[in-house]
Amino acid sequence: MSNKLDNSQIIHTDKIALFHRETIKKYTKNILTKNPPKIVGFLANDDPAAKSYAKWTKKACESDGIQFELKYVDKDDLETHVEDANKNDSIHGIMIYYPVFGNMKTFYGMSMDEYLRDSIHPKKDIEGLNSYYSSKLYRNIRFMDSPHNLKKLILPCTPIAVVKILEYLYQYNEPDPLLGKTITIINRSDIVGRPLAAMLANDGAVVYSIDIDSTFVVTKKKKSLSQMTVEESCKQSQIIITGVPVKSYQLPSKYIQPNTTIINVSSFKNVNIEEVLKIPNVRYVPQVGKVTVAMLERNLLRCYDNTNNK
Amino acid sequence: MSNKLDNSQIIHTDKIALFHRETIKKYTKNILTKNPPKIVGFLANDDPAAKSYAKWTKKACESDGIQFELKYVDKDDLETHVEDANKNDSIHGIMIYYPVFGNMKTFYGMSMDEYLRDSIHPKKDIEGLNSYYSSKLYRNIRFMDSPHNLKKLILPCTPIAVVKILEYLYQYNEPDPLLGKTITIINRSDIVGRPLAAMLANDGAVVYSIDIDSTFVVTKKKKSLSQMTVEESCKQSQIIITGVPVKSYQLPSKYIQPNTTIINVSSFKNVNIEEVLKIPNVRYVPQVGKVTVAMLERNLLRCYDNTNNK
Repeated sequence: MSNKLDNSQIIHTDKIALFHRETIKKYTKNILTKNPPKIVGFLANDDPAAKSYAKWTKKACESDGIQFELKYVDKDDLETHVEDANKNDSIHGIMIYYPVFGNMKTFYGMSMDEYLRDSIHPKKDIEGLNSYYSSKLYRNIRFMDSPHNLKKLILPCTPIAVVKILEYLYQYNEPDPLLGKTITIINRSDIVGRPLAAMLANDGAVVYSIDIDSTFVVTKKKKSLSQMTVEESCKQSQIIITGVPVKSYQLPSKYIQPNTTIINVSSFKNVNIEEVLKIPNVRYVPQVGKVTVAMLERNLLRCYDNTNNK
Repeated sequence: MSNKLDNSQIIHTDKIALFHRETIKKYTKNILTKNPPKIVGFLANDDPAAKSYAKWTKKACESDGIQFELKYVDKDDLETHVEDANKNDSIHGIMIYYPVFGNMKTFYGMSMDEYLRDSIHPKKDIEGLNSYYSSKLYRNIRFMDSPHNLKKLILPCTPIAVVKILEYLYQYNEPDPLLGKTITIINRSDIVGRPLAAMLANDGAVVYSIDIDSTFVVTKKKKSLSQMTVEESCKQSQIIITGVPVKSYQLPSKYIQPNTTIINVSSFKNVNIEEVLKIPNVRYVPQVGKVTVAMLERNLLRCYDNTNNK
């Protein structure tokens, strides 16, 4: 699990992912139905990384008792395919590998990829990226069926993976578990940084949400622009999430205080690991992908529970 | 109703507004309940135009049997006020007078005014501006309760007012009534031009949606960028909607063909009326505000029907 160097550690997340996948396996083993849980993933780009991620997700799902069909489609037919999948009762979860159209300007006043995200019906949106969910997340509404509060919101996979990793590292589960903690997140994408900032703030943290041209300070009550620099916010933070999707970016090691937990959600290394491990009591999580896939499976089972006519 | 000049006409919409308001009055007269239909309007800006529009709306509603409470609030408290109104069973419709924050950048990746629009619960959103509705409108989904299809979508007031004016002028109500028609809309705001383009395209028209930096051609099946100039699209159009919110703008009269219907949704005159009335068989609708208010009342009664525990 850990690779000790001095008193600092690299934390691998295999154990956390396995723990969640064991729960999923137990669940799927007990399903006796002609309509077993099934995901359809739509691949409409040529990105080899997306392709290998898709194949890897398929493998993980199938070994955990979840059917996974990968469909290669033309991007111009994608909306129609999604509409058909929305109506198909044998499909319980739909995902799209982004980017498809990138930031292509549309009639709708949003990017085509944002439009596609909202084309997946919320009840099958295992990535939790639909504005139906984000709108509730940003208002700290945790259930879909107020006032009954039985159906929990679907949350995006990478952010919820980070939350699960923090739960494991800090062993918390009380309300407002992050009260008193300051967290810096260097990424404000719709898929990772923005929902993650909201989730951690909803759990009590003061979050600095940083992107290339601005910093917001995010708490449960308020989200406002901040003049804080990356150096200042990192030096105040007990937890730093790095998510810069650029090979050349490196967070200066001198910004990192002793006892900091660093979680990297980028596919690039955003820190100098050797230097970081010389800082006392630093925990460094180099990647979260395995837990992300476990969370995708978990979301699928929630969608399955909510829709399947058992 | 009409002010004939040669064979061209200025069309005033009082009669159309009155027709809809009479239906509303008949409905409210038959309500026997301790929980009568009620709108709360939140005014958080200093815009005198918004204030007078609010007062005028209040007067119209009250004369039609709908309670209307106008609340002057601080813009920083607006979200809390809206949340309270969402929960208050004696309030059936909520509206906000925009702009409040204008295009102020937010943590959410949308403007604060867009965020506020989605803070009103869809079941009380009498302006129909919530993304819950626009997301369905852009996909030509006309009911909220598929597959039962008993509850029609709430649609934004100014666009639906334009549709009602066109229904009156062209005496249509079959499916795809605008098939074969070309329409130019010079405005692509979230509140008017964009939803209007979608509504007219859903009814069968080919719509050119024009704003300051681009033109989209919008049909039921496709929404794509077009290289068409304003002159070209106007010359092909049987219907032109002008909605430029700038005093200095004037659509060149030579763009307008005989037999064209022009509907102005801007608070400024966007054409030279004298010149336009010299074009054979042109119908010019100088303003739509009275029908817009009637549509607001109609939306309120739909919300009331959908929520009230009768």
